[in-house]
Amino acid sequence: MSRIETKLAEMGLVLPPASDAPAANRKTCIQVGNLLWLSGHGGRLPNLPDVKRRGKVGADVSKAEAYATARAVALTMLSTMKRHTGDLDRVRRVLRLFGMVNVAQGFLEPSGVIDGASDLFYALWGPDNGRHVRTAIGVAELTNCMAVEIQGEFELFV
Amino acid sequence: MSRIETKLAEMGLVLPPASDAPAANRKTCIQVGNLLWLSGHGGRLPNLPDVKRRGKVGADVSKAEAYATARAVALTMLSTMKRHTGDLDRVRRVLRLFGMVNVAQGFLEPSGVIDGASDLFYALWGPDNGRHVRTAIGVAELTNCMAVEIQGEFELFV
Amino acid sequence: MSRIETKLAEMGLVLPPASDAPAANRKTCIQVGNLLWLSGHGGRLPNLPDVKRRGKVGADVSKAEAYATARAVALTMLSTMKRHTGDLDRVRRVLRLFGMVNVAQGFLEPSGVIDGASDLFYALWGPDNGRHVRTAIGVAELTNCMAVEIQGEFELFV
Repeated sequence: MSRIETKLAEMGLVLPPASDAPAANRKTCIQVGNLLWLSGHGGRLPNLPDVKRRGKVGADVSKAEAYATARAVALTMLSTMKRHTGDLDRVRRVLRLFGMVNVAQGFLEPSGVIDGASDLFYALWGPDNGRHVRTAIGVAELTNCMAVEIQGEFELFV
Repeated sequence: MSRIETKLAEMGLVLPPASDAPAANRKTCIQVGNLLWLSGHGGRLPNLPDVKRRGKVGADVSKAEAYATARAVALTMLSTMKRHTGDLDRVRRVLRLFGMVNVAQGFLEPSGVIDGASDLFYALWGPDNGRHVRTAIGVAELTNCMAVEIQGEFELFV
Repeated sequence: MSRIETKLAEMGLVLPPASDAPAANRKTCIQVGNLLWLSGHGGRLPNLPDVKRRGKVGADVSKAEAYATARAVALTMLSTMKRHTGDLDRVRRVLRLFGMVNVAQGFLEPSGVIDGASDLFYALWGPDNGRHVRTAIGVAELTNCMAVEIQGEFELFV
């Protein structure tokens, strides 16, 4: 088993099945040189018992619940990357995340929510290659009222 | 006539005149290596009879109308790229769109709106090079109440 | 003194101290080839007498005040780049900004706010290398109610 997947197993985490793009006109990821760009993920989360996929964070979904949702979104991003690369160990560095939280008015902690994804990538790739740049915002609406959406960019070994 | 422009003509579509950047401090597009990065488009749409350029989607502008607006935004992106490249056939791949819909509270279909652009790029560049990654969100406000804004990245032939 | 820092001094501007990332899981900037990608800046502005760091633009913060905030955010971005490069003259081109304004409902000028940053970069790098592509939006909420957040990408001399 690959190094990254061994770490996931040690954390008790299981990769969900990779999902297809929701429409023929687009992809879940695209390779540009040695970079991998992922579509915004979050709309096709597996139905997990402890994860709230939909709702306004700060009203229907608590900050702690949204943190767990962001972590689940990161798992789906890993599944997308595994399907593209064949092996998550081909991912060299986590470069950048753009995190969008579907906020109720007055919810001031989008950063703390997206940490659910950032903490997982940091745990898996470590201080040298897991630390990334990031922007986290609270948005007015997301498709089908998903709670969290995250777009990411990663570097592959050449 | 170029291959892409022939397809546009067959679809009955006409490229609007390319617009200049709205201020001296910026550009409508910039080339980085063999990539072309476009500014957020949508604020300088031509005045077309069937396109609602301004208003809140879900209140002033319907989903179907906003889909048509997104398609018109994509046409202005093509005009920007034609002016930069001289020939749209120099664009090899559609890589990524970031779509922003100026939503009324409770409008849950930003994805369906931005399809107006994605469907056009897919129709022009086809399944191999037209499928792209994408993020679509509903935002609180856009400049001058434009209904749809789209930022894009494209790959040029070297 | 470097060329860019000489210009800053002539404008009466002082670089604030560079701040660390707010959490161990991420960075304030990352180098990808000869590009420098910056995290969203705005949450760690120095406490300046004339700059409103927090509040809803259009309600608590005026457009002119938010323009000054965006300019202050650009200064923190310069500090981040100076710490990474050692010398701002190593930055060849300003490529792209993504500007987020924490809007009160009905504030329709995110573009005019983010000009506070764009105008500064343009003044420092000039018409050939300071003009950049940009997207500016009004968002529902930002972390800790910061008024303006800006993400940027820059090109370094190789």
